[in-house]
Amino acid sequence: MKSKRARPGIDRRSLLKTATLSLLFAPALPMLRQAHAQTDPLPSWNDGPSKQAITGFVARVTQQGGPDFVPPAERIATFDNDGTLWVEHPMYTQLAFVLDRVKVLAPQHPEWTSTQPFKAVLEGDMKTLMAAGERGLVELGMATHAGMTTAEFEKIVTDWIATARHPRFKRLYTELSYLPMIELLAYLRANGFKTFIVSGGGVEFMRPWTERVYGVPPEQVVGSSIKTKFQIRDGQPELMRLPEINFIDDGPGKPVGINEYIGRRPIAAFGNSDGDLEMLQWTTMSGGARLGMIVHHTDAEREYAYDRDTEFGRLDKALDAAAANKWVVIDMKNDWKRIFAFA
Amino acid sequence: MKSKRARPGIDRRSLLKTATLSLLFAPALPMLRQAHAQTDPLPSWNDGPSKQAITGFVARVTQQGGPDFVPPAERIATFDNDGTLWVEHPMYTQLAFVLDRVKVLAPQHPEWTSTQPFKAVLEGDMKTLMAAGERGLVELGMATHAGMTTAEFEKIVTDWIATARHPRFKRLYTELSYLPMIELLAYLRANGFKTFIVSGGGVEFMRPWTERVYGVPPEQVVGSSIKTKFQIRDGQPELMRLPEINFIDDGPGKPVGINEYIGRRPIAAFGNSDGDLEMLQWTTMSGGARLGMIVHHTDAEREYAYDRDTEFGRLDKALDAAAANKWVVIDMKNDWKRIFAFA
Repeated sequence: MKSKRARPGIDRRSLLKTATLSLLFAPALPMLRQAHAQTDPLPSWNDGPSKQAITGFVARVTQQGGPDFVPPAERIATFDNDGTLWVEHPMYTQLAFVLDRVKVLAPQHPEWTSTQPFKAVLEGDMKTLMAAGERGLVELGMATHAGMTTAEFEKIVTDWIATARHPRFKRLYTELSYLPMIELLAYLRANGFKTFIVSGGGVEFMRPWTERVYGVPPEQVVGSSIKTKFQIRDGQPELMRLPEINFIDDGPGKPVGINEYIGRRPIAAFGNSDGDLEMLQWTTMSGGARLGMIVHHTDAEREYAYDRDTEFGRLDKALDAAAANKWVVIDMKNDWKRIFAFA
Repeated sequence: MKSKRARPGIDRRSLLKTATLSLLFAPALPMLRQAHAQTDPLPSWNDGPSKQAITGFVARVTQQGGPDFVPPAERIATFDNDGTLWVEHPMYTQLAFVLDRVKVLAPQHPEWTSTQPFKAVLEGDMKTLMAAGERGLVELGMATHAGMTTAEFEKIVTDWIATARHPRFKRLYTELSYLPMIELLAYLRANGFKTFIVSGGGVEFMRPWTERVYGVPPEQVVGSSIKTKFQIRDGQPELMRLPEINFIDDGPGKPVGINEYIGRRPIAAFGNSDGDLEMLQWTTMSGGARLGMIVHHTDAEREYAYDRDTEFGRLDKALDAAAANKWVVIDMKNDWKRIFAFA
């Protein structure tokens, strides 16, 4: 899908090679070219600096022989998920899942009616729940994410995500993925990029549906995880999920996770909060053509408006760092023509 | 690269679709088909049960509409490295690297001349070294693998692997990769498989050269690892390697690693030792067409002959389990026409 333009000074032999290749694929290529010229690959983006930053960057790194050319194998792009690819307000989707699971499991745990933070969940007391802090959330997480096999957990997630609905939009959570970002993922892939999700969310909470919703297969999803243990039960091998944290893929954990799970340094990274600061630093502060972008939630009417003062997806330090690092801040209200596929 | 054969009962409409597509790509496809028909994709394999097991399995899972068809996205194949893709005797290559590094670093550590297990390394006393056991090896590993950035370590590995030579063959270690297995990797990829390395070896020891040698990119290499820490030093972000084990990708750790790093269950797995037992179980004991293969080192003349009684790459339990699980045991001496590209 790369456009091939003759440039002054380009090697004549490589032009000849290109011409020979074109002849081989003669019936197919002109059609593709025509389709490409006529179709805007980012139709949900308004024309403006954000859209120009994307198309300009892609043109530079894909221009064979150009000073910023990057071979396809090294075109790694990483995307945060919550608040970057789908809605994260009024709470992270995975937290909504946790709260639902506590209610489903409560009959098997009569002690929860008098034990915090479970009591707060069952009573819908968000204030007490939030006061329980990270420790309380981890406790809820383990009670709902561990103690079953990976196959069982996958089914629980698959069933939940197919039916649970967002409290404001009354839509499936997967419908609350951002159309402009889905176009961006596809546009990058069409230009030889390999797209990865690098999220603070649980990796096994995302993998069952990322391929269908974002076109990102399970092996390109990096996230937080708990430990698992291999065992054979009744002649069947299985992985049991243990109530023990394995990896937290957030903040400084994101470059660590990128190195551990991907093993290449991205040339483009997309986030929306301070949890993405280090990923953006790791991606862009290395010389060469690099693209760092931050989704800024500025549209209270169509989605939400928040940055420095919020419980979920706080954007403070990363917003300050954007100017100094030439990261592009996406103004959701003005840059996105459409936000959701359904609207 | 799938061959399309008309079968009785096939839907006429899909035949028509195929015909239309073929016309579009008319100049290119017949050439490819001809080339495919005339060329044996596994020329270094002798005809026999091992080669037949491979080609038969690939034919089954790629036959569109067949009972064992597997969609390309789910064609995951995992390969152990040491002893499966390259030589692991007289010692794991990474251990040779460790011993070389201890010698290089010794001038900065005068205390090593009187401290075990460093003293044993510097004196070439393998018996004392082996007696130091796993704890001694971990100590040597940390002294040689931690305390530098990931970029620095990558350069150390890249320089070493470009020059270090095997004591018996006097060849670069990368030249001691098995040609039949490299053909197998390419054959699987040509049939829509995604090939992964799942090795007990250090992931950052393998990633710098696996793409060049095996065609497996860094993001498809799973291995053991130490922890890293993100930091910004002199305005440059870096990942510092810490002397702390993060993950051991061996034995029951292999299915755990496959789930954590790949997130899909393989349909084919290749190993050579008891360290691969659980990966083979996880891959094959799940119904459906599955392929489990074990490289059995039976050729003392061209390579090495060992199984139950060896320090590196012991094959004992997994050999016993092969018959019960219908894993195919590759007889290196009789199944491989050639072992190395240079020989």
